[in-house]
Amino acid sequence: MTSPRAPEPIASRDNPRVKRLRRLVQDGSAYRREGIVWVEGDHLCRALLARGWQPEAVVSSPAGLAWVQTWQQTGALAPEVPVWLLTEALMAQLSPLESATHVGCLVPVPPNQAVQAGVPTVVLDRLQDPGNVGSILRSAAAFGFRQVVALRGTAALWSPKVLRAGMGAHFGLALVEAVDASCLADLQVPLLATSSHHGDWLHEARLPWPCAWLLGHEGQGVRPDLMAQAAQTVRIIQPGGEESLNVAAAAAICLHASAAAVFRGL
Amino acid sequence: MTSPRAPEPIASRDNPRVKRLRRLVQDGSAYRREGIVWVEGDHLCRALLARGWQPEAVVSSPAGLAWVQTWQQTGALAPEVPVWLLTEALMAQLSPLESATHVGCLVPVPPNQAVQAGVPTVVLDRLQDPGNVGSILRSAAAFGFRQVVALRGTAALWSPKVLRAGMGAHFGLALVEAVDASCLADLQVPLLATSSHHGDWLHEARLPWPCAWLLGHEGQGVRPDLMAQAAQTVRIIQPGGEESLNVAAAAAICLHASAAAVFRGL
Repeated sequence: MTSPRAPEPIASRDNPRVKRLRRLVQDGSAYRREGIVWVEGDHLCRALLARGWQPEAVVSSPAGLAWVQTWQQTGALAPEVPVWLLTEALMAQLSPLESATHVGCLVPVPPNQAVQAGVPTVVLDRLQDPGNVGSILRSAAAFGFRQVVALRGTAALWSPKVLRAGMGAHFGLALVEAVDASCLADLQVPLLATSSHHGDWLHEARLPWPCAWLLGHEGQGVRPDLMAQAAQTVRIIQPGGEESLNVAAAAAICLHASAAAVFRGL
Repeated sequence: MTSPRAPEPIASRDNPRVKRLRRLVQDGSAYRREGIVWVEGDHLCRALLARGWQPEAVVSSPAGLAWVQTWQQTGALAPEVPVWLLTEALMAQLSPLESATHVGCLVPVPPNQAVQAGVPTVVLDRLQDPGNVGSILRSAAAFGFRQVVALRGTAALWSPKVLRAGMGAHFGLALVEAVDASCLADLQVPLLATSSHHGDWLHEARLPWPCAWLLGHEGQGVRPDLMAQAAQTVRIIQPGGEESLNVAAAAAICLHASAAAVFRGL
């Protein structure tokens, strides 16, 4: 039995709203043309609402409506935001995840801002793997960094895979992407980088705050001309030998060291 | 023109060797039945040879033969190891990677050993994501841990995805997998775990060495009954707020802290 106010769920794959959703879900950079991202699942939707964002529309299957009503009742979701109801089957087809998703939001992506000066920042130089990029956004948010600058050639920050790996960090950070390295001069904070050969040991180094950590391509590392702009290079102790670290692992260690330095009063 | 000694490359998808290869590449846990893993690409093959491992066979396309000859000439690859030559087309079909692979090795997996006592160890409690598991193996090897114990329910350590993410760390670690949590008593080193609520700040904590770090499921964390066995729990400072870290990021921070403590003389 449906209540008198519940509309019939959309069941057709050819519905224009469903076709638009499918495009956004399947094409990781479609948001750059459309200005809208698909934010999937209860956890991510709650993360964006908690940060004060409002979606253009909420998409829900009948099983997701209870969440949507809770968001409306608590005032997190504005009453004027439309709710599109889809059948469970259609919702399941839409999702690339193995476990069923019952709810998602269509969210306008803020237009690319200029780089902010004087703010703790993470700079991504051509990182390729969406899981790495998402993990780094998460670490950046956790450790008090407020801005992430993705240089041209880096994976699309708002792609579905990066969004999932970011676990909501997107909504608490200023994100600047597809910019030229010349913008680094606008950061107005010391640039830090890791090196395998030079610099102080990270666990003994005095780290400036605010700062900007420079993280490079999974295989090639940071471009040499950017590396040359670093005010300080540090080394991560690796007693196990010549192994190199995954870039998101190295990032976590560096960003945590900055947070710990702030905690200790530098 | 092929030289008189170069055999004709195998070109048929139905060749028994090719069929066996395909099974190993496509099924992440096939090695558990067959006792053999497919190690793909120049980097991983060099990593295993550098650690003194010998494959059962090398598989190469014509474009990969120069590498194989180098390994033979330097003595890294034993002369009696057979080399199977496949056409470039067949090799390309075999690989799940976007970029072409020209060489790989079939490597016998060492039989599951018992847990070693007194050794710096990382314990994985039901981690699911192969990228996370591989990244943690890499951090473990880099930071001087010698053993990784994957409790039952953790992703298969030798699956192709974990192997790729591990970047060769597999060949320098003692790996024990699919074991019951009762084996933790055999480690004979203090168990450490992170908590969001309890314990010293990691960056101020005194950490024992050797030790075993306990890392838990991406969503649920460490099982409560294992958590209760931890000799010490530490907290990772997160000034950005309630964000949680990716488990491989948290692992990198913890394992690095242990390495730094050893470096400082505890």
